[in-house]
Amino acid sequence: MISVLGLGPMGQALTSALLDAGQQVTVWNRTPAKAASVRARGAQWADDPAAAVTASAVTLINVVDQSALDAVVSAAGDAVAGRVIVGLASDTPEAARATAALVEKLGGRYLDGAIMTPTDTVGSREARILFAGPRDLYDAHRAVFDTLATTTWLGEDPGRAAAYDMALLDLFWTSVSGVLHAVNVARANGISPDELLPHAQGIVGILPPIVDDLLGRLAADRHDESTASVSSVAASVRHLIAASRAAGVDAGALEALRGYVDAAVAAGYGADEISRIAHMMR
Amino acid sequence: MISVLGLGPMGQALTSALLDAGQQVTVWNRTPAKAASVRARGAQWADDPAAAVTASAVTLINVVDQSALDAVVSAAGDAVAGRVIVGLASDTPEAARATAALVEKLGGRYLDGAIMTPTDTVGSREARILFAGPRDLYDAHRAVFDTLATTTWLGEDPGRAAAYDMALLDLFWTSVSGVLHAVNVARANGISPDELLPHAQGIVGILPPIVDDLLGRLAADRHDESTASVSSVAASVRHLIAASRAAGVDAGALEALRGYVDAAVAAGYGADEISRIAHMMR
Ligand SMILES: NC(=O)c1ccc[n+]([C@@H]2O[C@H](COP(=O)([O-])OP(=O)(O)OC[C@H]3O[C@@H](n4cnc5c(N)ncnc54)[C@H](OP(=O)(O)O)[C@@H]3O)[C@@H](O)[C@H]2O)c1
Ligand SMILES: NC(=O)c1ccc[n+]([C@@H]2O[C@H](COP(=O)([O-])OP(=O)(O)OC[C@H]3O[C@@H](n4cnc5c(N)ncnc54)[C@H](OP(=O)(O)O)[C@@H]3O)[C@@H](O)[C@H]2O)c1
Repeated sequence: MISVLGLGPMGQALTSALLDAGQQVTVWNRTPAKAASVRARGAQWADDPAAAVTASAVTLINVVDQSALDAVVSAAGDAVAGRVIVGLASDTPEAARATAALVEKLGGRYLDGAIMTPTDTVGSREARILFAGPRDLYDAHRAVFDTLATTTWLGEDPGRAAAYDMALLDLFWTSVSGVLHAVNVARANGISPDELLPHAQGIVGILPPIVDDLLGRLAADRHDESTASVSSVAASVRHLIAASRAAGVDAGALEALRGYVDAAVAAGYGADEISRIAHMMR
Repeated sequence: MISVLGLGPMGQALTSALLDAGQQVTVWNRTPAKAASVRARGAQWADDPAAAVTASAVTLINVVDQSALDAVVSAAGDAVAGRVIVGLASDTPEAARATAALVEKLGGRYLDGAIMTPTDTVGSREARILFAGPRDLYDAHRAVFDTLATTTWLGEDPGRAAAYDMALLDLFWTSVSGVLHAVNVARANGISPDELLPHAQGIVGILPPIVDDLLGRLAADRHDESTASVSSVAASVRHLIAASRAAGVDAGALEALRGYVDAAVAAGYGADEISRIAHMMR
């Protein structure tokens, strides 16, 4: 028996995966209509958060963010006492720690989670969920988590999964924004999304060794023996901004990047590898 | 016999790959010292661009950008007559077209190329070079290009490879900047580059199907049936900016993204898939 509160696209995916795994699932969502499809598949409806939390020893809450999550926890109120709440919203470490404190104040126990893959992965090993908070809670409910995703426990600090989440979503959404920006620049030059696609996949395909190299350089704080220098990238970024403007596309993210490369050149780091600019972002 | 002008990291990689393939290579670089290692491997030194261009029927020029390339072509001057110049600098389509006009004015023929992979791929099939300009030039020198990379000819317009280059480098450098930004946010939260690495690779690993999905949606201009909605991302981006600020890291690229998601929400697109925000960048 497990409860799921919050039935956006991700909450529905989590509920479906649990039903597929043969679990009995109780659900609640602020807007009841969103429960229709999981109810049709056998999920039990609860009329309010308190009833939903009361129905199971463990409740997963997957709403838009931690303040919505806190609102749901507060609505459940005394029902939280003696229960385990697993929060799966994406938010800051501070917000996750505050939720942990709120749940404990209500007499419950809190494990924080961050889902790192899209809805269509949920219920398979390709899904990834990071957890942080009491290790015994993670261990006790591991079997359920395993039906949802490949999971990792990161430490007792209930903010630690959120800290990883913030760094990883930063990379993710910045990259996605780059993809969408590139489509605009391509289009203005008469290149369709279909024509761009295989080449865009080529670029995505070269990222893994580059990520290895950049993070290795940052771990060692060594930026010498450059193969893609700050000054070379500075020139490229200028041309990218010019191409973006010529295409009538806002160049905001590239302008931020130009600020970092220019600062690195001005500081005498032009011959260093591009990893050097991480220092210029602080 | 082939000439290579410009011996930065990429020019040296190109020259090495040609030498490995058994070609006789003549080289020139503005700063002669950078020729040392390829000369030690058997490359012939030319004292100036004119001598270098005269030495071979085909000359590859790989300098920082198209204006440096034009300076080298102009320095070669009359030597360009009757020769084939292959430009491999990264720059805008307009700049590539201007170089084509300059070379033709000098009586030469111009093929423009854009190298889409790092130096360490050059000389293997993993390297990718895009070409644009006269098809017969591409076909005539295909055997040489094949020793350097997997190549694609994109059309007669000498600006077409550069147009792809601008879109693809936009995606590439925006993503790299996201990686470096994420490392800063992680570090401020006590997460080392080594700890972040496997998770960052996980994020990079989920991009291919997401790129397929986003470009498919943009090709069809359909943003319904959302699984990651604009309003959900809007909330996430706010938290990412808060986490970045709390970490003492400039949030420039994320703030640009927030501008697009907020504009999409304001325009009534909150329930649409995130692909919708491409429209807000124009
Ligand atoms: N979708 C993905 O691919 C994905 C991937 C990884 C992580 N995540 C994370 O998972 C969480 C859920 O994402 P999602 O895509 O399912 O949709 P979402 O749009 O982020 O969240 C929608 C859910 O939040 C609820 N909600 C919002 N404000 C509320 C409030 N004040 N009180 C109660 N409920 C409230 C909504 O209820 P109503 O239906 O009543 O509006 C709905 O159930 C987010 O933190 C997201 O970042 C999503
Ligand atoms: N490195 C990579 O991973 C990579 C990948 C794909 C594409 N590319 C592209 O390949 C091109 C070369 O890149 P790179 O990494 O080798 O180094 P780079 O720093 O972009 O370019 C260095 C080369 O440009 C020459 N140069 C600059 N200004 C010049 C001028 N006014 N006149 C004559 N020569 C001039 C330099 O000569 P000096 O030695 O005298 O300074 C040197 O040979 C760039 O367009 C780059 O975007 C590079």
